[in-house]
Amino acid sequence: MNSRALPAPEDPSATAESSHLPLTPVGAGEDPYLERVRDHIRTLPESGIVEVMNYGRDRPGMIPLWAGEGDVATPSFICEAAAAALHAGETFYTWQRGLPELRGAIARYMARTYGVPENPDRYFVTGSGMQAIHIALAMAVGAGDEVIIPSPSWPNAAAAAQKAGARPVYVPFAYGKDGFSLDHERLAEAITPRTRAIFLNTPANPTGFVATHDDLKAVLALARRHGLWIIADEIYGRFYYGEEARAPSFHDVMDEGDHILFVQTFSKNWAMTGWRVGWIEADPRLGQVIENLIQYSTSGVAAFMQRGAVAALDQGEDFVAQQIARARKGRDLVADALIATGKVDLVKPPGAFYLFFGIEGRSDVRSLGLTLVDEANVGLAPGTAFGPGGEGFMRLCFARGDAQLAEASRRLVAWLTGKGLSGAGTA
Amino acid sequence: MNSRALPAPEDPSATAESSHLPLTPVGAGEDPYLERVRDHIRTLPESGIVEVMNYGRDRPGMIPLWAGEGDVATPSFICEAAAAALHAGETFYTWQRGLPELRGAIARYMARTYGVPENPDRYFVTGSGMQAIHIALAMAVGAGDEVIIPSPSWPNAAAAAQKAGARPVYVPFAYGKDGFSLDHERLAEAITPRTRAIFLNTPANPTGFVATHDDLKAVLALARRHGLWIIADEIYGRFYYGEEARAPSFHDVMDEGDHILFVQTFSKNWAMTGWRVGWIEADPRLGQVIENLIQYSTSGVAAFMQRGAVAALDQGEDFVAQQIARARKGRDLVADALIATGKVDLVKPPGAFYLFFGIEGRSDVRSLGLTLVDEANVGLAPGTAFGPGGEGFMRLCFARGDAQLAEASRRLVAWLTGKGLSGAGTA
Repeated sequence: MNSRALPAPEDPSATAESSHLPLTPVGAGEDPYLERVRDHIRTLPESGIVEVMNYGRDRPGMIPLWAGEGDVATPSFICEAAAAALHAGETFYTWQRGLPELRGAIARYMARTYGVPENPDRYFVTGSGMQAIHIALAMAVGAGDEVIIPSPSWPNAAAAAQKAGARPVYVPFAYGKDGFSLDHERLAEAITPRTRAIFLNTPANPTGFVATHDDLKAVLALARRHGLWIIADEIYGRFYYGEEARAPSFHDVMDEGDHILFVQTFSKNWAMTGWRVGWIEADPRLGQVIENLIQYSTSGVAAFMQRGAVAALDQGEDFVAQQIARARKGRDLVADALIATGKVDLVKPPGAFYLFFGIEGRSDVRSLGLTLVDEANVGLAPGTAFGPGGEGFMRLCFARGDAQLAEASRRLVAWLTGKGLSGAGTA
Repeated sequence: MNSRALPAPEDPSATAESSHLPLTPVGAGEDPYLERVRDHIRTLPESGIVEVMNYGRDRPGMIPLWAGEGDVATPSFICEAAAAALHAGETFYTWQRGLPELRGAIARYMARTYGVPENPDRYFVTGSGMQAIHIALAMAVGAGDEVIIPSPSWPNAAAAAQKAGARPVYVPFAYGKDGFSLDHERLAEAITPRTRAIFLNTPANPTGFVATHDDLKAVLALARRHGLWIIADEIYGRFYYGEEARAPSFHDVMDEGDHILFVQTFSKNWAMTGWRVGWIEADPRLGQVIENLIQYSTSGVAAFMQRGAVAALDQGEDFVAQQIARARKGRDLVADALIATGKVDLVKPPGAFYLFFGIEGRSDVRSLGLTLVDEANVGLAPGTAFGPGGEGFMRLCFARGDAQLAEASRRLVAWLTGKGLSGAGTA
């Protein structure tokens, strides 16, 4: 447990998806110089993946499956569109809500993917999905408020809530033979007079949970009843391994006038993690508020980057389809191999691109991460990095090529079956 | 006065430097849908320049001198470095504190410009100078705190303080025949038990004020005495028209251990306004806190953009020198012409790239901005957009080419002398 995270009731030990975070402890009272930093900022949690990353980063031949990032660079048609705009001199201040061309492209993409009316006024370009979350939380919560977050979860949402002065309240997923599911009773019980928002990520990182339409209707009913915002993180919506072309979405069940803020990113679908471009979708009545929040936090996104994003949306459908097919194949390849050992507690996830699984007899996943670096030369993230409910699990990202995943599976299977469950201690 | 800005004691009527902000009023209670937005966010002020921009934007032949932006696109050596990195696949997550190469380049730049030790650990790359301000304020202030800001001032600092839940407290500059100066007595009197920071911009937008070393020492002494942060916005430090190569800086007077956060940007020196890249300079002990704040607000800056920034620092000195020489020439060209009419109250500014001046008999600068669009076809920003003390002034940006500035001067002089002071009403 992270004793520094004083404002949060549970452990928000945070994890970044980015891959180069040094591990420097910052504690209240640790250095008098830091005492002048506001408490809720000084006690923001650090990444919980960092330890194993730092431990394993420089190992020769290491296969890193710890981050939420694929191994494919941004396709060249996207890069070329951005470079052309850069060379054409699109280097001046631009629209705070995003280029009209990009807002139009997003509206077309959303219309064809979600069957919603094509309305550019609903979309606001942000400097990353993370900034979309930051802006959504800034509107929804302030000092002393509470945000409900099903857990385990991507820790940046909880940390961003804390940054806004609010308190993340974790509601653990139920877990059974069919994998993770929402516990609607506990969700309802977690609501207090200070609750202002529910943050729902579906398909979910790290669990692979995918909300059903009934789940979404129930959460929406709860939010309506209590006057709460829903912050809907559906960034993995296309990475769905059911029969349909995409996962169920709040778009399918909401009415106009619902208080839902959708956060989105170009990172995963179009292999643009490093670009830091995303969008927030909201009722157009929030337009000026969102514009102000963009203005006073980063003042917009480079126009030349937005030209790349337009190309991604308008010409990227084949690329996205390939990425999803590759992820599905990767999921089956690794999951089947691990399940066959009989040594893992693993339910194939219906969405996102992570396996989240337990290894028989190994409950201390923090040290297990280091052990796997030493003994299997594979990098996984410990479930404890994802908050309450993550104990006993490891996260493995399968958004990578066949060859690498096959080798990683071979190593993990050899370790699970050859070395047995007693394992060697951590180095 | 902006009656919506409830949390602030004075009028923080805000202005963006960016140039395309629509004017949509957002008021408490105006639309019930907005009532669920936190008060201090819903009441964030909008741009005060927007009205005149919207009024004049599409006029044929209009010369727009209202924004804080030059007319030169980013030099090609910078664009090429970024494009090369983009094509080379630098599109993955990267260091949250910035590329080590860029932090090193910043350290070299600061060492040769300010004579400080070359220490990359002091510099953290941000997604704009605006984000640097956002991060500095997040560390320094929270709900209920106060930030002292000499005024008139660039309104984004005050708005960002409000966004952080704090209250901007304006201390008007003194104004006399030598231009604007800090009123140290009023500065000291403005401090309350809730004061946590002083935000000082020098050279200043919009006034052209440049703090002397004695000013800086006095502010630093005040901050030390009361345990306050100083947020030092010295982004126009090179745009200085005195004898020395740059304006006085807190770097010249501070000691190790002082609580000073420097915010910086690539926008002005290297004509990179649209890129949204800057940095924050701080004591390395704040490194993990700053990294966390970057992580939980935007999760870093695109590596390929940072490659462009490295090129700017390492190869951009000639370009910066040209920019400064051009601005000095532009200042003299326009200021001399206006002063010669005898109709303006204008002191040549010692720094930054704005004239901030009054026109005899015209105190209603908001309508004057519209009148000048109609009758002189020149776009200036009303001083009221810059908070208390801006009444009666207009802001003119002279970071533009000779030909355009000469034509703008000709038009303004003709209007001032030909049409006389009675002027026509606004359209």
